[in-house]
Amino acid sequence: LSRLLQRLLSARRSLEICLFAFSSPQLGRAVQLLHRRGVRVRVVTDAQYMGLRGSQISLLRHAGIQVRHDQESGYMHHKFAIVDRRMVITGSLNWTTQAIQNNRENLLVMEDAEYVKPFVDEFERIWEQYNPVNYSFF
Amino acid sequence: LSRLLQRLLSARRSLEICLFAFSSPQLGRAVQLLHRRGVRVRVVTDAQYMGLRGSQISLLRHAGIQVRHDQESGYMHHKFAIVDRRMVITGSLNWTTQAIQNNRENLLVMEDAEYVKPFVDEFERIWEQYNPVNYSFF
Repeated sequence: LSRLLQRLLSARRSLEICLFAFSSPQLGRAVQLLHRRGVRVRVVTDAQYMGLRGSQISLLRHAGIQVRHDQESGYMHHKFAIVDRRMVITGSLNWTTQAIQNNRENLLVMEDAEYVKPFVDEFERIWEQYNPVNYSFF
Repeated sequence: LSRLLQRLLSARRSLEICLFAFSSPQLGRAVQLLHRRGVRVRVVTDAQYMGLRGSQISLLRHAGIQVRHDQESGYMHHKFAIVDRRMVITGSLNWTTQAIQNNRENLLVMEDAEYVKPFVDEFERIWEQYNPVNYSFF
């Protein structure tokens, strides 16, 4: 957790977060701090999981952070973050206290453009796809 | 799925699999095929998930493949495979039909030793830790 926080808090310009489940209070506070510092924070999450008890998503929204979610029956199952478009943090870890404290997990931190670019491209693709103007109500 | 199968089926000597959930019949058949070809296959999985309906784990065991699982309350949440100790395949994807067909997922294929070695080390650590001789019954 401390090493993840350290990387996140190094953001100076932008932070993109794409997470299936986000309930860790410490990570939620770190993201809010970055937002208050003027870092451009954008969050994509899973529609089924964002409303569960303990989710940080409503707190982030109340803090004025932009959040978008999928509209699909399948899960938005990614678990990655992009710091200043130069570092990607990805792996098996959802940002939950259970995962951080009790699970066997992996987290990769990569700064090679070869690995960062596909995640940036995927984030921008998802961000547009999940734009509320594209919602279809039935 | 076809690109994942292609990478897996390139194994000639060894395949280590460390998966939270494994229920895809196609991927199960590929792993059994490699075992029959003489590739040394070892599987680590999560104790809570391995008994669920559709799990491939019992089929792999019946085929004579070595499987070990965690003994912990937390999840063994990794989702990676190592081919011939030179290629790691990891990401958000569990090997389930739901994940392959319906979810938004990522899968990284890496051959840099810098990235492969930590996964090999983690697999060997888990493999010993989950050795049945270390089971504690109470």
